[in-house]
Amino acid sequence: MDRWDGKDPDSFAEESHRQDSVNLLTFILLLTLTILTIWLFKHRRVRFLHETGLAMIYGLLVGVILRYGIPSTSYHNKNPPSCALKEGPVSTLLLNVSGKFFEYTLKGEINSHEIHNVEQNDMLRKVTFDPEVFFNILLPPIIFHAGYSLKKRHFFRNLGSIITYAFLGTAISCFVIGNLMYGVVKLMQAIGQLTDKFYYTDCLFFGAIISATDPVTVLAIFNELHADVDLYALLFGESVMNDAVAIVLSSSIVAYQPSGANTHTFDAAAFFKSVGIFLGIFSGSFAMGAVTGVVTALISFFTKLHCFPLLETALFFLMSWSTFLLAEACGFTGVVAVLFCGITQAHYTYNNLSEESTKRTKQLFEVLHFLAENFIFSYMGLALFTFQNHIFSPIFIIGAFIAIFIGRASNIYPLSFLLNLGPQGAMAFALAIRDTATYARQMMFTTTLLIVFFTVWVFGGGTTPMLSWLHIRSGADKVCWSGEGVFGLIRVLFSSQDGTQAEGQSKTKQESAWLFRLWYTFDHNYLKPILTHSGPPLTTTLPACCGPLARCLTSPQAYENHDQIRDNDSDLILNDGDLTLTYGDTAITANGAGSDGGAMGGPRWGLNGKRSTTDEALERDLDSHEQEVLSRGTRLVFPIE
Amino acid sequence: MDRWDGKDPDSFAEESHRQDSVNLLTFILLLTLTILTIWLFKHRRVRFLHETGLAMIYGLLVGVILRYGIPSTSYHNKNPPSCALKEGPVSTLLLNVSGKFFEYTLKGEINSHEIHNVEQNDMLRKVTFDPEVFFNILLPPIIFHAGYSLKKRHFFRNLGSIITYAFLGTAISCFVIGNLMYGVVKLMQAIGQLTDKFYYTDCLFFGAIISATDPVTVLAIFNELHADVDLYALLFGESVMNDAVAIVLSSSIVAYQPSGANTHTFDAAAFFKSVGIFLGIFSGSFAMGAVTGVVTALISFFTKLHCFPLLETALFFLMSWSTFLLAEACGFTGVVAVLFCGITQAHYTYNNLSEESTKRTKQLFEVLHFLAENFIFSYMGLALFTFQNHIFSPIFIIGAFIAIFIGRASNIYPLSFLLNLGPQGAMAFALAIRDTATYARQMMFTTTLLIVFFTVWVFGGGTTPMLSWLHIRSGADKVCWSGEGVFGLIRVLFSSQDGTQAEGQSKTKQESAWLFRLWYTFDHNYLKPILTHSGPPLTTTLPACCGPLARCLTSPQAYENHDQIRDNDSDLILNDGDLTLTYGDTAITANGAGSDGGAMGGPRWGLNGKRSTTDEALERDLDSHEQEVLSRGTRLVFPIE
Repeated sequence: MDRWDGKDPDSFAEESHRQDSVNLLTFILLLTLTILTIWLFKHRRVRFLHETGLAMIYGLLVGVILRYGIPSTSYHNKNPPSCALKEGPVSTLLLNVSGKFFEYTLKGEINSHEIHNVEQNDMLRKVTFDPEVFFNILLPPIIFHAGYSLKKRHFFRNLGSIITYAFLGTAISCFVIGNLMYGVVKLMQAIGQLTDKFYYTDCLFFGAIISATDPVTVLAIFNELHADVDLYALLFGESVMNDAVAIVLSSSIVAYQPSGANTHTFDAAAFFKSVGIFLGIFSGSFAMGAVTGVVTALISFFTKLHCFPLLETALFFLMSWSTFLLAEACGFTGVVAVLFCGITQAHYTYNNLSEESTKRTKQLFEVLHFLAENFIFSYMGLALFTFQNHIFSPIFIIGAFIAIFIGRASNIYPLSFLLNLGPQGAMAFALAIRDTATYARQMMFTTTLLIVFFTVWVFGGGTTPMLSWLHIRSGADKVCWSGEGVFGLIRVLFSSQDGTQAEGQSKTKQESAWLFRLWYTFDHNYLKPILTHSGPPLTTTLPACCGPLARCLTSPQAYENHDQIRDNDSDLILNDGDLTLTYGDTAITANGAGSDGGAMGGPRWGLNGKRSTTDEALERDLDSHEQEVLSRGTRLVFPIE
Repeated sequence: MDRWDGKDPDSFAEESHRQDSVNLLTFILLLTLTILTIWLFKHRRVRFLHETGLAMIYGLLVGVILRYGIPSTSYHNKNPPSCALKEGPVSTLLLNVSGKFFEYTLKGEINSHEIHNVEQNDMLRKVTFDPEVFFNILLPPIIFHAGYSLKKRHFFRNLGSIITYAFLGTAISCFVIGNLMYGVVKLMQAIGQLTDKFYYTDCLFFGAIISATDPVTVLAIFNELHADVDLYALLFGESVMNDAVAIVLSSSIVAYQPSGANTHTFDAAAFFKSVGIFLGIFSGSFAMGAVTGVVTALISFFTKLHCFPLLETALFFLMSWSTFLLAEACGFTGVVAVLFCGITQAHYTYNNLSEESTKRTKQLFEVLHFLAENFIFSYMGLALFTFQNHIFSPIFIIGAFIAIFIGRASNIYPLSFLLNLGPQGAMAFALAIRDTATYARQMMFTTTLLIVFFTVWVFGGGTTPMLSWLHIRSGADKVCWSGEGVFGLIRVLFSSQDGTQAEGQSKTKQESAWLFRLWYTFDHNYLKPILTHSGPPLTTTLPACCGPLARCLTSPQAYENHDQIRDNDSDLILNDGDLTLTYGDTAITANGAGSDGGAMGGPRWGLNGKRSTTDEALERDLDSHEQEVLSRGTRLVFPIE
């Protein structure tokens, strides 16, 4: 029972509002502190800790204060009043207190052993956000930003490999970890450490959520190592896709419900149904995202909205967000839809936007992404102390660390292996917190939180100093893949694949190249001219019989820009010798003579490929924007053609 | 009882989440439609309807569909299950359904006559947002944007008049309308149309909320009429202040609670307590806003955060939002605090920001403001049909319209009279929806909604065509105040004040000028150098004895920029002949020879003073940004020095 007994609901509402403000204020001050410390670290060139790690530490500190510094508000009675009803749970319940009626809404079921925890600490309960906040408000800008800033030329070129690696890598990781954890669970049950239910599907679910890795840190490292641009695109693309696969995989595991009495044995029908659900959700979300992107492109193509940048930006923002909601409303996965929407928007709509809007949209999503990411990480720190239903099981936690290590090491694809050097990120946390209703899920949540902490602090902050210590950094003008250090290892790993696999791989590469050529031709000749102002005129690409239609659909600008666009668009042409990398103003020719005309393109932002921390003189010369880009892997923004 | 009876809570949560997505999607599609129609109207030069009016119409249409197009989901039973408890309402209630426990949270008290309405239509209930969403999420960006874009030179120059007019004007309007409405209520009670309680304080509360007017349309009209820049600043400043006064006034009226048995008679002690509360809340909120602004300025002054525009923008955004939460947490009014924070940020922090951040922050708040405003107006349209507890009382509504007309007409300050030509806006709605618990408040909410609708459609869309029809538009190069049409009327009104008042007015003006000079000297010599990089060096303004301190606090940039800044800062110098107006690239010299060096300043955006709708050739020459600024009164962004 709490302190509102007998008070009038007005003052209850007021106090509750004030409490909400204090809670939000806590987070905002946390973020402000984080920002100031990030600045200080950048300013003083402190590099041992990644900024997301910082946000977590501040969150932890505040969590400790909330947990132990504020006395519990429930002093009367541990049990809240309860009331019995014969019928099942209803969404709205009326409470009759001596003739006055009060309305109550259903929050959820609670386990019988938790009833005593309810109301234990009002403040702690209040800072616990509805998990849907993470899914509906914080994840979408992070994922959209990733899609919107995907390095498209190299992404599309490597699309086949990226998808293969992401699907296979995540599936392998999920099953290896899931099976190992099932062993751990069986062990725990054998020695009496686990009395509650913990099924095989729960283990697989854990494997799926823990397979979502954070691209940020891996990218930051690769940036410092001047890795090959294709490898870079592959890694970024894969880590982004990885999240998408992990989220869909986890929901299809949840959907696995065998029929019959024993609901937790293997059932082929249910298994194939789950596979079907996986494919259905993935392709449905992909379609949703692509369609919204194309619709936005069409709207911006057919209206002259670019005369009013504010309207244009607002429309762009709303359409991108609506993808998420549309997918969720249809039962697909909003986050995955938003990812593909971001890619489509960057590929088509971006070309129709006014110059002001291109900057506005980028900056808007950059700020949203930054705030959302830091919020999630500081919330993670907070949740370690304020979440009410933590279940710390040392055996499970140790088992999970070992399983993850084995799961990562057993990855036959070297790229996925590399990727797995990275820490777990926001996605793993969001997936774990989404459902903490059962004992198994609560144990998973606690373990996931600890794994994220550990990996962010160790891999996030530790990798760069470790690499420095190993002296494997290549110089500013050294060509990558030169065979030393980690990259040597990677090359060895790559080439040491046994013959069959290498052959299969090269076949896949060829196939994807052939597929890519087909897709590229179609996209360049038909989709771009129809959806954007930047393709070649349709009159030149469509057969003569379609002349009137072509003239009708071709934008007048297309004729004017024809020649220029052909140059810009060569960005996408698959050219074997073309490994030139244009980042910002610095061009590095790795091992080819091709030139992609990067300097001719529209606005280009990027990371400076020449960067080396020992080269501080150069760094000081860079302008503030470049410096920021350099020191923050998250916001690597690639040339968008 | 609803359709969740007996289902498991998981599927309940999933369905509820899907429903939430659909609801949000509805609003996003509404906004998208609004944006496209706004574009179409701009494109086709349709001017009879203001864009906020458009948003309302779309909201209305969707409201009608939701209300009448979707069958009610409650078919079993009109009454939700209720459960009795002897003790007062608690925040958390447990429901025991055959051994399973479900947690419920308190939503609020409901009147006994409304019990039958609960659960009547699940969909309608769901689209009804928590009113706190308006106060905590949607209003702050609107108000901050107003403060951040306040035309500061003219605003500070007229600060005395603005505050006087805003306080007196709102108080007069509130009391006139309140008293008239009390008469209406008495009449209704006499003829038996009103049986529930409706106190005098309720009438005053209604007077307060309806006194908040929307600046947008008045400004748009004045823009088209090329009004005098001081008058313009006065009006914008006053209308912004008006909202602040109305919100504080309404909360002090709510706080009026006489002691003793008869709680609704006049009680001098309670009255003075209310006045004290008014002054306390207003000054407290002002202090909060100013302090957060100054703290942000200090942070940006002492750190080199401007090297990292993203961090800078994020910090600026977080600090501005934290003002709101801080004020709410302390029991002050967040919206008022945010207004003064915006003014302080524009005055100090803006000077310390990097050039990229100045653009980013402006654009960010512009987009937020645009989305929030259009969302509120489409929600208003929706609420007319979906809000569950409407009480349409024809006598009250007609009475309210008459009272408002009289309240506006009886305003002795001509400027407030002019201002009152404008429609009610988002603030009146947000204040009215905040508390709809009692019968009186529900009647007020319905009436406020209708008044907003009427005034937005009539004053919002109708004024410009009406003015065109009256042929009182002055030409592009005609000096204002030339004595014809509405402005002639204003001049007459101004000069027709009786002698005493005119004398008092001129005294006030002189006093405020004296005060202004004092403030200006202090601000220019001490505050600006301490808080920004743009003042004169403190070493020149502080007495010689403070030399070391001055050297310590002065930014190195201050010495370099000293001469240049003196020119920029002359913006603020009160110069009697100085009525030169620099908007963007167009300078209009009204009746003085002064020059404020506007062209020398930093980045300047603005509205084009030369605009005339008949002058379409000129309009076509303007670049897209200018066109947008021109056609949208809301986003008038003034030069910020």
